[in-house]
Amino acid sequence: AAPEGRARGCPCSVPGTLILLLIYLAYLALGTGVFWMLEGSLAWNSSRSFQRDKWALLRNFTCLDGPALDSMIRGIVQAYKSGSLVLGNTTSMERWELVGSFFFSVSTITTIGYGNLSPHTLAARLFCIFFALVGIPLNLVVLNRLGHLMLRGMHRCAHRLGGTLQDPTKARCLAGCGAFLSGLLLFLLLPPLLFSHMEGWNYMEGFYFAFITLSTVGFGDYMIGMNPDQTYPVWYRNMVSLWILFGMAWLALIIQLILSLMETPGKACSCYYEGSEED
Amino acid sequence: AAPEGRARGCPCSVPGTLILLLIYLAYLALGTGVFWMLEGSLAWNSSRSFQRDKWALLRNFTCLDGPALDSMIRGIVQAYKSGSLVLGNTTSMERWELVGSFFFSVSTITTIGYGNLSPHTLAARLFCIFFALVGIPLNLVVLNRLGHLMLRGMHRCAHRLGGTLQDPTKARCLAGCGAFLSGLLLFLLLPPLLFSHMEGWNYMEGFYFAFITLSTVGFGDYMIGMNPDQTYPVWYRNMVSLWILFGMAWLALIIQLILSLMETPGKACSCYYEGSEED
Ligand SMILES: [K+]
Ligand SMILES: [K+]
Repeated sequence: AAPEGRARGCPCSVPGTLILLLIYLAYLALGTGVFWMLEGSLAWNSSRSFQRDKWALLRNFTCLDGPALDSMIRGIVQAYKSGSLVLGNTTSMERWELVGSFFFSVSTITTIGYGNLSPHTLAARLFCIFFALVGIPLNLVVLNRLGHLMLRGMHRCAHRLGGTLQDPTKARCLAGCGAFLSGLLLFLLLPPLLFSHMEGWNYMEGFYFAFITLSTVGFGDYMIGMNPDQTYPVWYRNMVSLWILFGMAWLALIIQLILSLMETPGKACSCYYEGSEED
Repeated sequence: AAPEGRARGCPCSVPGTLILLLIYLAYLALGTGVFWMLEGSLAWNSSRSFQRDKWALLRNFTCLDGPALDSMIRGIVQAYKSGSLVLGNTTSMERWELVGSFFFSVSTITTIGYGNLSPHTLAARLFCIFFALVGIPLNLVVLNRLGHLMLRGMHRCAHRLGGTLQDPTKARCLAGCGAFLSGLLLFLLLPPLLFSHMEGWNYMEGFYFAFITLSTVGFGDYMIGMNPDQTYPVWYRNMVSLWILFGMAWLALIIQLILSLMETPGKACSCYYEGSEED
């Protein structure tokens, strides 16, 4: 119990924190380098191909000159960013209608924040801040509860399966592994199949969307229900809402596990520890 | 100690969870209604003003007809969304350069996910997933540590100030209130002044940006360092990085406090409880 007690105490020695910050910065530097390497050249190429398209456009429409087109593009991008560009063929998710407002509320309190919609009036912004201040903890309560329920469900399954298995510790470990594997299948590996069918993405795009959503990063580069050429069945959005809720609870459990492994590597599998104490 | 024990036990009765889910849905419905009311009419108006601008443009450039302009706007928005539109006057934060890649890494592991940049190659996406899977827990470790350090610092201050005050409980409460108020000033009320000076926003826009960033929602509608007409001093971005790190640790403490108030309302101020037990 001694190492556990030490690990549980206030871990805030200043040199330890500095080492941690250095690791953190090194990790960020690694990410910076790799992303730069992987994306930099592509971005350069696609920028050049866009310039080519622009010249083709200029040849077609002779009344447009270079600077006029540039300023027009800038104006359109500005209008798009500020949310005032609402084209005829946008979906209901891109407008402040019932579905859009609901998904904005969900994306705010889950802290996903896709950003396809964002409030522009002062009143809506102030309300958004208060809404998030209560909604984010409320969402955490719900996620905690769902995570507990999911773990308990798996626990019961393990007990029922291993009725002969007189070791509660092993049953708990089994439940944990089961929760991990079934969650992986149910929340990260199977949903991309549905998304690729409904949205016309490939499997990897669906998987990337699933991970970026459940980890609450939410870049907003992919989002469900945004294809105006597609008609979505009614059950689809409800399914996706349920998937977000349960999947987020599951991924939060996984991230908590990785977190506890990082903070106290000695407690790698706490169920083994507790088991050996009982022996 | 009895009510605390009950509250600490596994809070996963099924009817309780259903009630919680109903509260959650009602809260989302409230948000949906208010956002719809506050933003719906504005979006409608600005859409109409954009249509007006478009007609003005059509009169100026006679070679463009309605459908051609529409398809052009759609193409430009598509190129902008997919990241291939890189205009001449974009800042280094909008490109996959050193600064942009670094801020992308920060926004990924903090789960802010502004979305001004997002990976487009398969390799970068896969790396992004692994980077987040380790980076998010690492970031949580750092935030926990910083939160502990901040609390301990405030605790010491309170002790030093109230040397005559023989009650450690009162000192802890004082430290908590001090941490809350100084954090509010340092992380939410003062930074908008800097942002409004540097980015040309008004105070409310800066406050909205600060809250949306520190709560890790990160819609990406506002972001620092994105104004191409502005030159930013070197210390500015470092200051902002430090602000994000410490401010997030602080807001996480506040959200944890609200969370504990929601889960166990009886423990409203746990320091009072522990104090009365010692008497
Ligand atoms: K986010
Ligand atoms: K986001």
